[in-house]
Amino acid sequence: MEKPTKITSVSVKDIRFPTSLQKDGSDAMHKAPDYSCPYVAIVTDTGLAGYGTTFTVGRGNHIVCCAVEAFEKQLVGQALSDIFNDFGSFWQSLVSEDQMRWLGPEKGVIHLATAAIVNALWDLWAKIEKKPLWKLLVDMEPEKLVSTIDFRHMTDTLTKEEAIDILKKMQSGKQEREKELLEKGFPAYTTSCGWLGYSDEKIKKLATEALAEGWTRFKMKVGADVKDDCRRAKIFRETVGSDCLLMVDANQRWEVQEAIDWMKQMAEYKILFIEEPTNPDDVMGHATIAEALKPVGIGVATGEMCQNRVMFKQFLKAGAMQYCQIDACRLGGVNECVAVILLAAKYKVPVCPHAGGVALCELVQHLSMFDFVAVSGSMENRMIEFADHLHEHMLAPVVLKGGRYQAPQTPGYVVGMHDKSLADFEYPNGAEWQRMFKEGLFQPE
Amino acid sequence: MEKPTKITSVSVKDIRFPTSLQKDGSDAMHKAPDYSCPYVAIVTDTGLAGYGTTFTVGRGNHIVCCAVEAFEKQLVGQALSDIFNDFGSFWQSLVSEDQMRWLGPEKGVIHLATAAIVNALWDLWAKIEKKPLWKLLVDMEPEKLVSTIDFRHMTDTLTKEEAIDILKKMQSGKQEREKELLEKGFPAYTTSCGWLGYSDEKIKKLATEALAEGWTRFKMKVGADVKDDCRRAKIFRETVGSDCLLMVDANQRWEVQEAIDWMKQMAEYKILFIEEPTNPDDVMGHATIAEALKPVGIGVATGEMCQNRVMFKQFLKAGAMQYCQIDACRLGGVNECVAVILLAAKYKVPVCPHAGGVALCELVQHLSMFDFVAVSGSMENRMIEFADHLHEHMLAPVVLKGGRYQAPQTPGYVVGMHDKSLADFEYPNGAEWQRMFKEGLFQPE
Repeated sequence: MEKPTKITSVSVKDIRFPTSLQKDGSDAMHKAPDYSCPYVAIVTDTGLAGYGTTFTVGRGNHIVCCAVEAFEKQLVGQALSDIFNDFGSFWQSLVSEDQMRWLGPEKGVIHLATAAIVNALWDLWAKIEKKPLWKLLVDMEPEKLVSTIDFRHMTDTLTKEEAIDILKKMQSGKQEREKELLEKGFPAYTTSCGWLGYSDEKIKKLATEALAEGWTRFKMKVGADVKDDCRRAKIFRETVGSDCLLMVDANQRWEVQEAIDWMKQMAEYKILFIEEPTNPDDVMGHATIAEALKPVGIGVATGEMCQNRVMFKQFLKAGAMQYCQIDACRLGGVNECVAVILLAAKYKVPVCPHAGGVALCELVQHLSMFDFVAVSGSMENRMIEFADHLHEHMLAPVVLKGGRYQAPQTPGYVVGMHDKSLADFEYPNGAEWQRMFKEGLFQPE
Repeated sequence: MEKPTKITSVSVKDIRFPTSLQKDGSDAMHKAPDYSCPYVAIVTDTGLAGYGTTFTVGRGNHIVCCAVEAFEKQLVGQALSDIFNDFGSFWQSLVSEDQMRWLGPEKGVIHLATAAIVNALWDLWAKIEKKPLWKLLVDMEPEKLVSTIDFRHMTDTLTKEEAIDILKKMQSGKQEREKELLEKGFPAYTTSCGWLGYSDEKIKKLATEALAEGWTRFKMKVGADVKDDCRRAKIFRETVGSDCLLMVDANQRWEVQEAIDWMKQMAEYKILFIEEPTNPDDVMGHATIAEALKPVGIGVATGEMCQNRVMFKQFLKAGAMQYCQIDACRLGGVNECVAVILLAAKYKVPVCPHAGGVALCELVQHLSMFDFVAVSGSMENRMIEFADHLHEHMLAPVVLKGGRYQAPQTPGYVVGMHDKSLADFEYPNGAEWQRMFKEGLFQPE
């Protein structure tokens, strides 16, 4: 019998990029984010390494690193085959650890750390199978794929049997869809033109350039001042025309009634959805907003801060989200993302993942492509967010053509980052951080 | 003009008690908890110190300590008068910090850390005013008290004006109620007799002793096996009689339908409420359970893992909780607890705080006493949990007589812990931990 491959080490680096210097990523709640990630490496006794990240906006990144370290004992010494043979149970053992679960459960710092670890395990699995993650998922037997999911606290809405049924129904036509995906890629929308800190001129210039590159779907940040937002939406519409899609994102800025009033004032600019109108925990509030905005044709999108499958099941059940914006690193990694993709399929809600940040584009493209080929079977109303920052640090950066993500071919999931990027941007001792401290651009924490 | 008192330092110790050795605190989800707390000290330039804690069950306690440290910069140098003059805004600035809020927002590790810090500030305030916290709150003008609350994402359910109105209506009779409180204390129930790891004999013995001491309200843990639970409930009923109150606690063990089926089997033992029947995030699931158990007279209680006021407002609105179990350290400290107490008053749901753990009894007694004197005006169906562990470490431990909490008189909130306790149980270098490592009772992490 072959000796099973075992995990020999789990390590984590605190990686931060000084994005606040350019106001990239600024929105109504995050005025000066420094896009960051704990960068997790899981190494096996064969020398193979899987990488995983989760996304944060700077200060506090080391708290998540600290949480990753606390999981080390549950991983080192484990055989990969034991994990992958019953990944659902292993996932449950991670999130249910007797003492750690008190700190969540399954939310916030602990769950962000879980995501980084779990994504590194999937990176390993995909590398072993020599497939990009989307293809690993697409090729998996429905029963096997569903065995990776923890159905605890979800069975009143989606059972294991229903999940297998959804996947089995979509087996026919898979090859054609895979071909279509490889040829055409998957639709994207861009957030890079409409950050809240950008001037009118910058917005106009960036939107003009994006349109020329083939982009047809745009999102802008709103929520500071309704008159500013209307002016900016008008600039967008004048620049991109009436056929392009325009979405807006308030990053949780409003009270329930405020969201309704504000968005009614913006309806004339033909807004497809309002993203995160209010607190991300407020299922009932979102349902009220969705109901009120239905007559003006604006949907509600949320999910990037939706903490776990239990919250998603309620949002979907209550009609509180018309666009389901899973985040590859806020949910507890691929296993829980697949669970939510299946839940969304049951409620016929399109999945439009949150991306941007660090590595999120590289990650979520796999989830949407799997969704198209094996679950929803459709690209209609489905698109992946795109922000054009920090891809240069990735070993296998996303490839976009004419506003569409091209299906990645490199085996793995997050795949990894360049050694030089890690050396330069590890906080606080990386070469770039030391330079910036010296130049007075940042104060060490 | 007098120089304002300023904060000069914020420090935190990782304090852990080896409670897992006795199976104290064992339940369906936490088999071997080591009751722990980050112990926060906020010191001012006058030398006065305020202490705050939050509760965890062991491993991972240092993650919360790490989060506390990340807040240090927001506190050091602040004038106390600036904080207390507009505490609502200061609280919002803590939970909205540009980069840290991504890690929650307002939930999990970050919010537990917020609680420890905020409770230390209230401890300072109460010490300056030379009052126990409950009395500080009771004596505060309604407008002043309400100014400590952050109403963001709550105004669709409770506005500032409504909150002031609730408090103003209860101004009459305050003196009589305060007198009643001082004479009679506040009702408690005990969890100490019914931990899941205890034998039938131990349960019988402890319940008999408790009854003799004057206890009339009991809670037992359930959720591992329905036959065991029925047998244990029968032992309880045979021991304490049919007039005493009996509650059960499943610690989130069940699926929605499972909770309904299980509890219907236990109805014959006259169960007042089932606590945490399923996932703490599942508002809609709890509403379904509450509806189904209404005909057999069992209410639903939850809240010890309810992450913030936005979740509480939904539970209350949806009729998903008949008993509101706020936790002094899961919510973001006194400010948010007061907000939830006011929300519960609006929906006429009794507040029965979660306690036990480390320092929770010492903390929540203030909240219930304030609730009685200034908000609900009633002790009916209201009671505070009590577990008889670790009080010997507190500088001002709770005083119980005949199953009732006696109103504390020591100025402050958590007040503080003995120096010897801190020296013995700081992890991992405290004298007791070093002894236990040497004796092989625990492995260092």
